[in-house]
Amino acid sequence: MRTIEWRDGTVVTIDQTRLPHETVFLKMRNCREVAEAIKTMKIRGAPLLGAAAAFALALVAYHSKAERKGELLGELGSAAEILKSTRPTAVNLFWAIDRILDKARSFSGNTRDLAAFVVEEAQRIADEDAAANRLIGRHGAELIHDGDVILTHCNAGALATVEYGTALGVIRAAWEQGKKIKVVATETRPKLQGAMLTAYELKRDGIPVTLITDSMVGYVMYKRLVSKVIVGADRIVRDAVINKIGTYTIAVLAKQHNIPFYVAAPKSTFDLTRSSEDVAIEERRPEEVTHIGPQRIAPKGVDVLNPAFDITPLEYVTAIICEDGVLHGEDFVKFKANL
Amino acid sequence: MRTIEWRDGTVVTIDQTRLPHETVFLKMRNCREVAEAIKTMKIRGAPLLGAAAAFALALVAYHSKAERKGELLGELGSAAEILKSTRPTAVNLFWAIDRILDKARSFSGNTRDLAAFVVEEAQRIADEDAAANRLIGRHGAELIHDGDVILTHCNAGALATVEYGTALGVIRAAWEQGKKIKVVATETRPKLQGAMLTAYELKRDGIPVTLITDSMVGYVMYKRLVSKVIVGADRIVRDAVINKIGTYTIAVLAKQHNIPFYVAAPKSTFDLTRSSEDVAIEERRPEEVTHIGPQRIAPKGVDVLNPAFDITPLEYVTAIICEDGVLHGEDFVKFKANL
Repeated sequence: MRTIEWRDGTVVTIDQTRLPHETVFLKMRNCREVAEAIKTMKIRGAPLLGAAAAFALALVAYHSKAERKGELLGELGSAAEILKSTRPTAVNLFWAIDRILDKARSFSGNTRDLAAFVVEEAQRIADEDAAANRLIGRHGAELIHDGDVILTHCNAGALATVEYGTALGVIRAAWEQGKKIKVVATETRPKLQGAMLTAYELKRDGIPVTLITDSMVGYVMYKRLVSKVIVGADRIVRDAVINKIGTYTIAVLAKQHNIPFYVAAPKSTFDLTRSSEDVAIEERRPEEVTHIGPQRIAPKGVDVLNPAFDITPLEYVTAIICEDGVLHGEDFVKFKANL
Repeated sequence: MRTIEWRDGTVVTIDQTRLPHETVFLKMRNCREVAEAIKTMKIRGAPLLGAAAAFALALVAYHSKAERKGELLGELGSAAEILKSTRPTAVNLFWAIDRILDKARSFSGNTRDLAAFVVEEAQRIADEDAAANRLIGRHGAELIHDGDVILTHCNAGALATVEYGTALGVIRAAWEQGKKIKVVATETRPKLQGAMLTAYELKRDGIPVTLITDSMVGYVMYKRLVSKVIVGADRIVRDAVINKIGTYTIAVLAKQHNIPFYVAAPKSTFDLTRSSEDVAIEERRPEEVTHIGPQRIAPKGVDVLNPAFDITPLEYVTAIICEDGVLHGEDFVKFKANL
């Protein structure tokens, strides 16, 4: 199945906090349940957040008892506020909500047709993401060769998207083409998406994967155990890629070791009217650092920093892989100019 | 008390795997118990490993029933082999063992006097380490100024030494001089010595400390939240500093951000007849990466890399702080030449 699906007035997804130990499905019936699942990271990954927010609005429309369009638009607007307050950094969430609200506001049919249209539009957003990931995979795979060992961070896989994945989509596509590759996955503290999700996805698909702690990135590059880096993105702005905390550390090390550093993301992650200074970096609960699961590791009362994302200036990025193709520095400049 | 002490034919230390949750003392009666505590990292930290190995030989000598010197020397030699097979990278362990064996072999008194001498020599090694740390602190504190925010990795504190600490000794000395400083401690996966030991030591002493995950080092440097780095060392060879995994990652980032990178270590950590290629980097159990404490975080059967140390070439090191003073690049070259 896809990571997220619409099923007769419910939205079904996998609880990502329970993997790799058990596969638990979440069945969500209203917008608040989706918002809660996003906040607690049962649903995570920038493209998936876009699809989840879209389906949350679809739930509102589908179950609405509104008799006038204005009333339904009001309900959608309130739901949008709840959804937008969940997590501030990944832009896909805002992009999907605004796309649906904009189209709903200019919709010319009756209330019932509008409700059906919102459900269809959410489904289109999910379908487009699935298609974009396949294209990203196809374009990105051209950069991958036999013998490559690809380091990836966090989880930009099927679980971060509707299906297939962005960074892991590139790796999957290369693997499906028969290229002999290996993957090095960082565990990605504090939430351990690399250990819990990426290692799980790749192992399930039979793609060779070696798990390391985040602190080992320098060592594996120094020892020439890695030939390329591919990561996803939560938001790509004019001057930088904003992605999971630790990405910038890896990008600096990659540049120092002359290792190409690729970012794979659909255009729904692009936010090219903004620059990095305009973006709020989410600061999450200190317990994510002082604890691992329920287990306390640090002394009580210790101060903590817990930014969920960091900022990688474009000078560290060899190319951005999107559904349109591989955008090297010049191409990305042209892409921005043509918006 | 000191981190390790000789008490009437026993060696007493703190079980470092139980901190910060509880303070449990280990009372060791023979060499095998010390070797086991080293292997399981109940005792860790390069200078402390030197003192622990010395006291382990003291236990052998103290409890020996040997009637001839050759017999006692044989027992010491066997014990040395057991101790040397515990952990391969920190040089202090080998240095302390060889120092005692060399002196014991050329000792001219009788068997009983030799046994007493070995105990005294072990105590001297511990006392010298305590004194060296105070000197390292005094020299290093001259580099620290009001307003500095010092990033440190792993635990190079009182718990890694006989007392006071190397990197944390510098921080302690600056703090005791009234300098207004703060510390950023990396948690240091896989064994979490930063979260469990460094945060604990600094909090206990009232020195402001903020805990981060290892992946956040790039972010805090990018945001200019850190002004200096000080770490310890497990072995300093002609061309590099070998220290806890993650040190090289931090050194590359520090250089990229023009942040001074200092290494604090006693001369017992120097191994200047060797270069980095000659040193075995300990690879530890995969469970340290796939689990955190008893809790599994990664899927079963995933491949893992778990080097306990990495190699930081001297070009990344601003200066080495030892008991003789602060050795900048030129000084260290002279220091090596004068050996």
